[in-house]
Amino acid sequence: MRVGLVGLGLVGGSLALALRATHDVVAYDSDAGVRSSARSAGLAVVDALAVVIPADVVVVATPFSAIVPTLRDLAPRAGATVLLDVGSLKRPIAAYAETAPAEARIVGGHPMAGTTGAGFASADPTLFRGRPFLLVPTARSDQQAMDVASALARAAGAEPTVCSAEAHDRAIATLSGVPLAVALALSRSGEDVARLAGPGFRDATRLAATPRDLADVLLRGNRDEVKAALRRFRDALDEVERDLG
Amino acid sequence: MRVGLVGLGLVGGSLALALRATHDVVAYDSDAGVRSSARSAGLAVVDALAVVIPADVVVVATPFSAIVPTLRDLAPRAGATVLLDVGSLKRPIAAYAETAPAEARIVGGHPMAGTTGAGFASADPTLFRGRPFLLVPTARSDQQAMDVASALARAAGAEPTVCSAEAHDRAIATLSGVPLAVALALSRSGEDVARLAGPGFRDATRLAATPRDLADVLLRGNRDEVKAALRRFRDALDEVERDLG
Repeated sequence: MRVGLVGLGLVGGSLALALRATHDVVAYDSDAGVRSSARSAGLAVVDALAVVIPADVVVVATPFSAIVPTLRDLAPRAGATVLLDVGSLKRPIAAYAETAPAEARIVGGHPMAGTTGAGFASADPTLFRGRPFLLVPTARSDQQAMDVASALARAAGAEPTVCSAEAHDRAIATLSGVPLAVALALSRSGEDVARLAGPGFRDATRLAATPRDLADVLLRGNRDEVKAALRRFRDALDEVERDLG
Repeated sequence: MRVGLVGLGLVGGSLALALRATHDVVAYDSDAGVRSSARSAGLAVVDALAVVIPADVVVVATPFSAIVPTLRDLAPRAGATVLLDVGSLKRPIAAYAETAPAEARIVGGHPMAGTTGAGFASADPTLFRGRPFLLVPTARSDQQAMDVASALARAAGAEPTVCSAEAHDRAIATLSGVPLAVALALSRSGEDVARLAGPGFRDATRLAATPRDLADVLLRGNRDEVKAALRRFRDALDEVERDLG
């Protein structure tokens, strides 16, 4: 399978490194320095977005704000190529897909993996091993597109799980949004004693170091679901506090 | 310096392994199997609590509920030996010290280190390296006792920091109690989607696996401080939520 990779940060870079053993991978990043690092790592890199096509599938792994613009750029000339994004929210992708050219094939994806590192320098071909890889069908998905996305997830070592954009964004509010909000609150309310912290407090506040743009996507970008999930969290915290006696 | 070590779990075992390079360490655990493991690891182990004395300092690293009974047992025959406990709360130790024999020398200690492991099998001589080691003077501390405790902390690679029992238990409510309560609440409110979780959610809920007896000490044992710290946490969380817009 010929795989185009757009965006060689932690996720895109790791996918490129994971897939090149079994697939024909062609990678692109808008940053010339990143392209150069990727070439040094032995990846086949092109200097323009357009030439990642033709491909069986193009993975869009740009920062979240660039995903829909990139899909909008690629969709009219993608032909039979499946476009698979790997951003942290899926409703905005599903909404774009409804307006995309009728012949486009677009699938939403989200591998549940990450590290505190960022960028191609932190890319790791084993990042996705054994991790869930959520796949979201859109108005421009068909069974073959879903099969291609699923095969790609498995080739990276991940376990594909299909769900709706709504179910995805609701789950992410609980799994990423609330833990991030909580880490920020723990970090702020513990500022005066943080110098005494042991590894427990450090782990509990690690997500507070999430890069600002990603934090904005996970919190403000998913506001309604995060607020609902925060209500469930507060109820659970009230229950824990009641157990204190 | 001759160091007695009572209780060879993760903390006591790690201290014994860390200190034996530079000190004359004699260890005791109430469990014969643990004593046997400690002997196999090359530690000098005795079969009765009483014979850890004479020593310059005896570290009481038993489960929290056994600390005051152990101090009560040792104090009347400790002579000039400094008794240093390493439990997670310091008010109960300070309260006992006020009632201890006038000649006893008792210091409260708390190394801010830990792992998900437990027991002597997880003991690691590097556990305390670079970590804060809180030292709490009691009604039975004098400068020499504080100096001995401080030297022991440094010998384990830790950085001694002196504070009052009240300041300690207040800091621990923020650094351990609230993060534990929050991890329990995150874990409960995320139960239905936990199978999709990535490493961020796993780190954020790791403390939910704290052993029940330790969780009881950190939460119920420090109830008033934890409740006050939870109020500060909730205020900070409200602020994070307001920022969502």
